[in-house]
Amino acid sequence: MNFASDNVSPFCPEILEALTKEASANAPAYGGDEISQQLDAAFSELFGKDVAVIPVATGTAANCISLSALVSPYGGVVCHHEAHINEDESTGVAFFTGGAKLLPMDGPAAKLESSSLDTFIADRVDRGVHSVSPECVAITQATELGAVYSVDEVTAIGEVCRKHDLRLFMDGARFANAVAHLKCHPADVTWKAGVDAISFGATKNGAMAVDAIVLFDISLKSRIEQARKRSGHLHSKHRYLATQLLAYIQYDVWLKNAAHANEAAQALAEVLIRQGATLVHAAEGNELFVKMSPELAGKLRDAGLMFHGWPSLGTDVYRFVAAWNTDIVQITNLKTTLG
Amino acid sequence: MNFASDNVSPFCPEILEALTKEASANAPAYGGDEISQQLDAAFSELFGKDVAVIPVATGTAANCISLSALVSPYGGVVCHHEAHINEDESTGVAFFTGGAKLLPMDGPAAKLESSSLDTFIADRVDRGVHSVSPECVAITQATELGAVYSVDEVTAIGEVCRKHDLRLFMDGARFANAVAHLKCHPADVTWKAGVDAISFGATKNGAMAVDAIVLFDISLKSRIEQARKRSGHLHSKHRYLATQLLAYIQYDVWLKNAAHANEAAQALAEVLIRQGATLVHAAEGNELFVKMSPELAGKLRDAGLMFHGWPSLGTDVYRFVAAWNTDIVQITNLKTTLG
Amino acid sequence: MNFASDNVSPFCPEILEALTKEASANAPAYGGDEISQQLDAAFSELFGKDVAVIPVATGTAANCISLSALVSPYGGVVCHHEAHINEDESTGVAFFTGGAKLLPMDGPAAKLESSSLDTFIADRVDRGVHSVSPECVAITQATELGAVYSVDEVTAIGEVCRKHDLRLFMDGARFANAVAHLKCHPADVTWKAGVDAISFGATKNGAMAVDAIVLFDISLKSRIEQARKRSGHLHSKHRYLATQLLAYIQYDVWLKNAAHANEAAQALAEVLIRQGATLVHAAEGNELFVKMSPELAGKLRDAGLMFHGWPSLGTDVYRFVAAWNTDIVQITNLKTTLG
Amino acid sequence: MNFASDNVSPFCPEILEALTKEASANAPAYGGDEISQQLDAAFSELFGKDVAVIPVATGTAANCISLSALVSPYGGVVCHHEAHINEDESTGVAFFTGGAKLLPMDGPAAKLESSSLDTFIADRVDRGVHSVSPECVAITQATELGAVYSVDEVTAIGEVCRKHDLRLFMDGARFANAVAHLKCHPADVTWKAGVDAISFGATKNGAMAVDAIVLFDISLKSRIEQARKRSGHLHSKHRYLATQLLAYIQYDVWLKNAAHANEAAQALAEVLIRQGATLVHAAEGNELFVKMSPELAGKLRDAGLMFHGWPSLGTDVYRFVAAWNTDIVQITNLKTTLG
Repeated sequence: MNFASDNVSPFCPEILEALTKEASANAPAYGGDEISQQLDAAFSELFGKDVAVIPVATGTAANCISLSALVSPYGGVVCHHEAHINEDESTGVAFFTGGAKLLPMDGPAAKLESSSLDTFIADRVDRGVHSVSPECVAITQATELGAVYSVDEVTAIGEVCRKHDLRLFMDGARFANAVAHLKCHPADVTWKAGVDAISFGATKNGAMAVDAIVLFDISLKSRIEQARKRSGHLHSKHRYLATQLLAYIQYDVWLKNAAHANEAAQALAEVLIRQGATLVHAAEGNELFVKMSPELAGKLRDAGLMFHGWPSLGTDVYRFVAAWNTDIVQITNLKTTLG
Repeated sequence: MNFASDNVSPFCPEILEALTKEASANAPAYGGDEISQQLDAAFSELFGKDVAVIPVATGTAANCISLSALVSPYGGVVCHHEAHINEDESTGVAFFTGGAKLLPMDGPAAKLESSSLDTFIADRVDRGVHSVSPECVAITQATELGAVYSVDEVTAIGEVCRKHDLRLFMDGARFANAVAHLKCHPADVTWKAGVDAISFGATKNGAMAVDAIVLFDISLKSRIEQARKRSGHLHSKHRYLATQLLAYIQYDVWLKNAAHANEAAQALAEVLIRQGATLVHAAEGNELFVKMSPELAGKLRDAGLMFHGWPSLGTDVYRFVAAWNTDIVQITNLKTTLG
Repeated sequence: MNFASDNVSPFCPEILEALTKEASANAPAYGGDEISQQLDAAFSELFGKDVAVIPVATGTAANCISLSALVSPYGGVVCHHEAHINEDESTGVAFFTGGAKLLPMDGPAAKLESSSLDTFIADRVDRGVHSVSPECVAITQATELGAVYSVDEVTAIGEVCRKHDLRLFMDGARFANAVAHLKCHPADVTWKAGVDAISFGATKNGAMAVDAIVLFDISLKSRIEQARKRSGHLHSKHRYLATQLLAYIQYDVWLKNAAHANEAAQALAEVLIRQGATLVHAAEGNELFVKMSPELAGKLRDAGLMFHGWPSLGTDVYRFVAAWNTDIVQITNLKTTLG
Repeated sequence: MNFASDNVSPFCPEILEALTKEASANAPAYGGDEISQQLDAAFSELFGKDVAVIPVATGTAANCISLSALVSPYGGVVCHHEAHINEDESTGVAFFTGGAKLLPMDGPAAKLESSSLDTFIADRVDRGVHSVSPECVAITQATELGAVYSVDEVTAIGEVCRKHDLRLFMDGARFANAVAHLKCHPADVTWKAGVDAISFGATKNGAMAVDAIVLFDISLKSRIEQARKRSGHLHSKHRYLATQLLAYIQYDVWLKNAAHANEAAQALAEVLIRQGATLVHAAEGNELFVKMSPELAGKLRDAGLMFHGWPSLGTDVYRFVAAWNTDIVQITNLKTTLG
């Protein structure tokens, strides 16, 4: 079983069906088609607010293009050290923003805590043009270490942002897993909590290649569209991005897929703990970070499990990621197999 | 019938079939999968030379990422005024290259002519660090105005580039149409003629969203991969870019599709000429640029034809683009319909 | 005599005196000193309007930093083909603006004509995010070919800018020469005519190394100061930039120097015409562009005159530049020397 | 007495004299003059090796332009958290390099320690295009906290760089103070120790506005010159940068000025310690970082001393900087004044 990443999963049947249906007729290019035209309304309904949706094919694009409209070339983006934008997107943020600097800080399970954030920002000595001033805070929901911000936590961060006049961006590569865990309305952890824009992930959770930039502040739309085009992220056959996204949110496919992945992670956690592993922190989404002996790791690999070590948390820590298509029966069977 | 662009076409059955086949199993992310691993070999066979292939989802990305490895932030890219990189990619080239300047020149049917190119380059007064020196020449095959460079023409341009120590890049958004027209080996108009890198178009000609950067100079590979990642163009489910590309070149689908589009364009040209339109220049690929009266334009639109005016060629000039799925029987029937 | 450029001149006695006076006492760094604090008031008086002044050491810096606040990374700057920003500043504009594109056009003596400008802008087909939209017009006063815009001409250009909602920037590397020629108030050809910002040149006309960004739209100040710092153009001993500027505008040194240079150019023109040369266009500032035979050029060089050929105007065209320190008596003596 | 910074000092008599001497005659622009032509030879003699010298007006420009040739847009620059490039140059490094990322680490007195550096680099998990790989190490000599690297320390860092195939850059804003302290040959702590390029500071130590990029790897010269021009740092009256630099290194003015400033700092340290302050770490150059009570700070301010608090080292830590013109007699008199 492959727990290396949720990126190893294929795309889901609902999206295959939708793409197949769109594989025969002509339609206007660059988003002028009927399907693309439905995006704003569909996501506005989903979020209970007028939003603008700009789809792109990757999460890095969604994050970096969003930030390019939220921060100046002279500004700073406060994020967690473990943030994907800090650790996994090369120099993308500086590239798209024209130079903005990441200002990383710590926090448990890759979460920013509102009080530490407040202190971090307040403690930065503003030396005018010499120093870099924070202009935006970026959080990841669920975090890179598998934790989920509660509604209260995001709300408190939103308040810190307003207090310091900062933008709030959410990297929602695994937003579905977070909402499935929280069982809240998607509005509660986004615009109602003060989030200006989110990259609404779909690829990891059942799409082929699409994440959506969802703007709760619609005034950003024009800059985002300009930035998308000139960075080569405007697809000519734009409808296939839109087709994936609509199929993804219709009939709650996104939540169904995420709930399944979360459940699979829980099932796996149970198996691993029984084998002697311990969770580094509570598993809330579809990612597990576990501490275990080399012997156990070897035993699991011998049993056909694929997963990565996670050296930033310790040499004896490993990550397991479940996905929308992870077979829970097979996990349960592991109990027998592993003894 | 929709002749607005080849971008209005859907993706072709062979690609749907290939994607469907890849919609169930897990596979490593970011190009570590078996399908992605086949790309270099498949394209090396296609071009008769060891090449490196870096797929991206759009032509703008393919062009701009390629140029970022071919020109310095202080350098110039000689291209035609009508070039897509000059007219249709916003400020993408400057963005990806860190500032490189387009140095546009003229030429018939959006072609650079080798002798004019030689003069253009030689005539630029080199004022050291003050002025921008050409470092690369970019040509489009087939051109934005539907013309196709012959093998001799590309070869002559390649010689000018070597003479002046410049790189040669080919925007091959409609490369298939050009090769289908020339009936040459793809090597003849690329690396054998001195081309360093090509953006090998697939999206317009039957793919959903993929163009391939094909490097004839493999030493560029590492920089291209870095540039792709940090610009958000590395897909996590990379295999779906690879799947499209392999299906596209297997069994000569790319040439079959292009030959069909070219043939449809010829059939349409015949119809339009019979109606009183004249070709602005010979139709060699799948694009027609025709001069006609407003009356004729209105008559065609009344008959259900969709197409764009092309003001840069004159207020009475229009563009028609055929695609891999254009129905030639329907075109032939136009003869009757239009009278 | 050296007519190669006004850049070959040293700095003038008034500036030496002022610098010398400031060479002994300590003072706050980075513009916190008393002299720097006088700049805004001094230039506000000069221009008859509240302005913000941000000094830098070079004209390229003044131009490019200014444009970085007037145009987005996706926008275009309309300028003359001969404009310094287009021909002599490497890829500086793209670098500072994050990618903005120069949109060069023609016009007599390197001037933009308001009617052609209006047509040029109106004729650009706006294809949304695909194409580059003009956001700013940049003119040079006096022009790179030695012509001076009249008050009416600048005013008319300002009206075109307002009509199309564009910013208007003036490269005033030789602004003093223009004002000395026009004998107008500096306000008449700047903010009263619709100019948003000017790079107010001093280096060519008697300073050691300083040009001032003068903002008629004060709201741009903060962005300009950020851009100046991060591009390394904020001097720690800022007072020496300010000292030069204040000495330059006190007692009308700037106009005195420029009037002298203009007069010297006129005197030289007389000499050259008498020798058989013809002016390519009327000499209005301190630059002459003359057509003459190779024999005459040789004769002048033999007589010790230094000057450059100007191939963009023809192989028989040459440029002569007078400066604040050009010896007019020596020019008059040329009449005798040359016969 | 003003101990706020060495930037508050004026420029020194030797430089005033040299500038005055160059204030009357014409000379070629942009470095074509005789004085500028002497730079390479003069600095080659100073460093005992063929070097290339590119002068600019500020330290930020010297640092950032240098780094733009030492690191790719995808690469990382390892530096100390307190480094000027990390804390005081806005987003300059990202701007000039096209996106390169600073990778800050800790160390005593703002020094990188070779063993920690080795570990820091070795511990970074290379995740290919996803992560940022170190390509360059940047150290400051003397450091931002007033410490001086010994010859052995720089040599050891140079060895770590070679081991990991990294470039080594030195921010030498206070290089003179370091060499004056070490009493070594300038070669010993630069190219002989593995440094590729240094920004050789002059402004803080007696110049008006000039720092020199000195390249020990001459192959970098062309890129540096291109970067200087397009960032607006090539002065037209280049000779005045060169004049300052030559006067600065002739007759060892640079070392004389620095030795004086260092001596003044020592004298001040003695006074402050006697008053009850303690040094945070040994004072080696011209900067003191001292811990003292608010009462003592108040007493010193009442006595007319100007200095800054240094919150990054603690709320009770203050910085005092002596300069080339600090009056040592006046410091000695403080003993009496303060009692």
